[in-house]
Amino acid sequence: MPEYTAPVADLLFVLCDVLQIDRGDFDSLDRTACAAILTEVARLAEARLAPLNRTGDLQGCRLENGVVRSPEGFPEAFAEVCAGGWYGLDCAPEHGGQGLPHMLHCAVGEILSAANMAFHIHAGLTHGAYGAIAAHGSEAQKALYLPKLANCRWTGTMNLTEPQCGTDLGLIRTRAEAIPDSAGRFRLYGTKIFISAGEHELAENILHLVLARLPFAPEGVRGLSLFIAPKRLPAADGSPGARNALRAARIEAKMGLHGNATCEMVYDGAEAELLGAPHQGLAAMFTMMNEERISVGLQGYAQADRALQGALAFARSRTQGRAPGAPARPDAAADPILVHPDVRRMLLDIRGFTEGARALTLWGAQLVDSARAGDAAAAARLSLVTPVIKGFLSDKGVDCCLAAQQVLGGAGYIEEMGLSQILRDARVTTIYEGTNGVQALDLVARKLGANGGAAMLALLDEMNRLANEPDATEALDEIFLAPLRRALEDLQSALLRLQAFGAGDPEAALSGASDFLHLFGHVCLGYMWARMARAAASLPEPARRAKLDAGRHYMSRQLPATALHLARIEAGAVAALPLDAGAAE
Amino acid sequence: MPEYTAPVADLLFVLCDVLQIDRGDFDSLDRTACAAILTEVARLAEARLAPLNRTGDLQGCRLENGVVRSPEGFPEAFAEVCAGGWYGLDCAPEHGGQGLPHMLHCAVGEILSAANMAFHIHAGLTHGAYGAIAAHGSEAQKALYLPKLANCRWTGTMNLTEPQCGTDLGLIRTRAEAIPDSAGRFRLYGTKIFISAGEHELAENILHLVLARLPFAPEGVRGLSLFIAPKRLPAADGSPGARNALRAARIEAKMGLHGNATCEMVYDGAEAELLGAPHQGLAAMFTMMNEERISVGLQGYAQADRALQGALAFARSRTQGRAPGAPARPDAAADPILVHPDVRRMLLDIRGFTEGARALTLWGAQLVDSARAGDAAAAARLSLVTPVIKGFLSDKGVDCCLAAQQVLGGAGYIEEMGLSQILRDARVTTIYEGTNGVQALDLVARKLGANGGAAMLALLDEMNRLANEPDATEALDEIFLAPLRRALEDLQSALLRLQAFGAGDPEAALSGASDFLHLFGHVCLGYMWARMARAAASLPEPARRAKLDAGRHYMSRQLPATALHLARIEAGAVAALPLDAGAAE
Repeated sequence: MPEYTAPVADLLFVLCDVLQIDRGDFDSLDRTACAAILTEVARLAEARLAPLNRTGDLQGCRLENGVVRSPEGFPEAFAEVCAGGWYGLDCAPEHGGQGLPHMLHCAVGEILSAANMAFHIHAGLTHGAYGAIAAHGSEAQKALYLPKLANCRWTGTMNLTEPQCGTDLGLIRTRAEAIPDSAGRFRLYGTKIFISAGEHELAENILHLVLARLPFAPEGVRGLSLFIAPKRLPAADGSPGARNALRAARIEAKMGLHGNATCEMVYDGAEAELLGAPHQGLAAMFTMMNEERISVGLQGYAQADRALQGALAFARSRTQGRAPGAPARPDAAADPILVHPDVRRMLLDIRGFTEGARALTLWGAQLVDSARAGDAAAAARLSLVTPVIKGFLSDKGVDCCLAAQQVLGGAGYIEEMGLSQILRDARVTTIYEGTNGVQALDLVARKLGANGGAAMLALLDEMNRLANEPDATEALDEIFLAPLRRALEDLQSALLRLQAFGAGDPEAALSGASDFLHLFGHVCLGYMWARMARAAASLPEPARRAKLDAGRHYMSRQLPATALHLARIEAGAVAALPLDAGAAE
Repeated sequence: MPEYTAPVADLLFVLCDVLQIDRGDFDSLDRTACAAILTEVARLAEARLAPLNRTGDLQGCRLENGVVRSPEGFPEAFAEVCAGGWYGLDCAPEHGGQGLPHMLHCAVGEILSAANMAFHIHAGLTHGAYGAIAAHGSEAQKALYLPKLANCRWTGTMNLTEPQCGTDLGLIRTRAEAIPDSAGRFRLYGTKIFISAGEHELAENILHLVLARLPFAPEGVRGLSLFIAPKRLPAADGSPGARNALRAARIEAKMGLHGNATCEMVYDGAEAELLGAPHQGLAAMFTMMNEERISVGLQGYAQADRALQGALAFARSRTQGRAPGAPARPDAAADPILVHPDVRRMLLDIRGFTEGARALTLWGAQLVDSARAGDAAAAARLSLVTPVIKGFLSDKGVDCCLAAQQVLGGAGYIEEMGLSQILRDARVTTIYEGTNGVQALDLVARKLGANGGAAMLALLDEMNRLANEPDATEALDEIFLAPLRRALEDLQSALLRLQAFGAGDPEAALSGASDFLHLFGHVCLGYMWARMARAAASLPEPARRAKLDAGRHYMSRQLPATALHLARIEAGAVAALPLDAGAAE
């Protein structure tokens, strides 16, 4: 497993120089303050969490008599990160948080996730539960639960999927029955699957957020309510009391993420309370989902960055063959493989992606901050770009993990080198929190047309303004803005085409959904690269040169993919396939 | 793990209708004969090998006191396949083979490999060793070894890589010392790594082909000689005798392919004999390598086809959501997910690739047959397309395995569903037998310019003739030939650009090598699809419709990638990266 070095300098560049975190509500967050925070968490992640990453993969989680044993070292490390307050950065001070912006929470999250994704997921879902209770909970629920969740003294889970029901939540069968004379308490009956961190001993309690149906609820998603079911019922003083009637019945053997128990949870009359209004469970759950989706895009590029670090270190130390021109190390038997253009191509493909993805994700986090502060336009924009950040960054993140593994040649296929684990862990990001196909559907069928397409039009306008900036230098225009202009033309052509398919030919529109998500994703990354190129003047050499090289690589070699995605969208509806296996094909 | 059904009908279509296997030397091989062979091996592969695939993954191989224990069931199944004569189809009858074309060997190989790749690799390498000895061995060596290798009574291995040396074979240190008064016998000293099937008990003996240096050999690759070192030294009657001084010192924990032991082999004075002339080892080894490389491309698409079968079965049985128009199953709670255009897009992306790849690979195998029969132009064309078949088909094969896993959503990430294993097994194909970067380098730096570019020009001419066929129907022209013409224009532009970079700017030419390989690969697949579309008239409905749908999908949605690859080639040299980790980036 390669060492991990947190990209503190690049995070500071994006936070401070590109996105100007200290504008507006967070004016005390200057570069020095951000640097102090990131340097501190980097030390913790590099020294404590990164070395446990392979332990988690090798040992996995074991279910023994209903108890999940986490990998060695996880409980101690979790206690340490909790004690540092790292999980509650953007939680409210009155609930034990630090009141810092979500942007900083995400920057810290990238570091923690890159160091040990399986470990960090425990906290990620807890943060989602915190958000859902903060948004929809009663005052009593907030007072009881938020201080426990803010710093992961208790952790949280999301319970949506059932054996017969994943994407199509209308099929949920788990039911809730009111407990007579209980002042609003219920019992839950049903089985939930694929519950990340569903059971473990890292925290003193686990709060399960569970979608279920009340008696006589309407069919479909409009009949779903959200419940809070604690693993141990809170005693009168709020401390964890008696075990509730719920349990992990099995844990899945997964491709990766072995350090996190993916559980089948059985609710056998578990006591629970409503979170939010009856039959409004989906809206409440989606409060969790949106921020979770951004954090999944983040996981995708964070693993890609860790893979890049491993590949780059290998390419510097492994010697094979000679540079195309003169030998780089004439006194040695061979040159480092980093001299080979195709090796550098792979590494720069990854860097061009990860640095763009970091900027895009933190920009998304900035939208979260603005939306929390009541900015409705930011909320609409966030809603538009959330499926892009989740879907595009996770798809490309997996591609990058493959490319990084490829740099190592045969060594990349050997488990002890760690690149396999990084890929196996990252692989889940295109799948969970809504598959990327679902993200594409959400984008094309819901988000694009919301409010008459206002959010898309406003964003296009902003991007076009940057791409046509009259006082750009010639180099900026040629290398960054001109490719962005071409990509924006493709995006606008794609929008027109989707509009033309419209309601009359939903098959054609939906056949292009994933390609549209990727096309839009490339434009977003091209836009962030143009912003970074403009801000790069603040960087010292050789960082400025390296940043512009990575950007030029992205703009010249990756951004032109917009034309391919446009061509696919224009190809229209994909063919039908027979629904019965018996039919000859 | 999904069931496996061998694609016998499609193999027959390609062999008989597209490639006309019965023309020329194999005129007795009519459709009936081919069908009998493929149906028989399909039964064996489906019933015996496919069910052992997951066993192999779960149990893996264990090294105990120098002996490798294969997964349960492997030894019995191996004996059964050997007894059927399936491994020697294209070996010479005088050496125990069946004298059938290599095309048929590859068609059978696809089935065996898709059913159980880790299992089949034992035989794949043996076939390579057979070929090397047939081409370079003395009469005595041929008489002694070929009958044992033809049907895998003994298996073979390739020993190239050492800890300090993979791609750059000039760095090989294993040395050979002549045994005094031994009539040409040697002792080998050295360590080889990543030796597939280096040790096992499936066969009564293992023949290791080992690259090593004779005393006073020239430095670099011109000082390499190829040796035969049997695990057990042949007794006077040819049967396996005493153990030789070589052993498996460890086996690697790999991402996949657990059913095949990847060994570190230690040669500690092992007795060996020269194969071919001294210092000519590389050429002799490359006799093995070329056919091996085609078989690796085959493995890539074979795994993709197996993944497609699993994904398609899942998409038919899993119900979630509703078709965009009217419900497909109005009486059920939901429709099969196959109704969703994005799910079909993924499935047709894979099918468009696998069916094209099958045709391309069998066309390559036909070139092997022609080259063996002395056709120099076929040999030159084979040399040109070998890196494309290996590199392009394995890259795309892995992409397809990812897409198939994606179709399953969360279930795809669970090991027992089998899609993870298929991806993990397929992952090695872009790496071994020369990484795909090495394939691209081979194509651009060696193969394109060989003999003044004659092979490329002849192939372009043939492709252009088909693409401009005057008597094509309008539908054939619009759907297949017009896209092929556009792709051929991109290919010709790319060739001109590479020529312009030429020797003056090798950095720029090599920066585009992988993109050129992919561009050329797409054109080859587009060419095969045009040939299949022309031949599809022979298919019964609904197979004809399904074939044309898959082809249209490929031509309209995948082939346009040529323009993207051209844009990347035109972007020129990738940036330099500092060779020292200390340098800031």
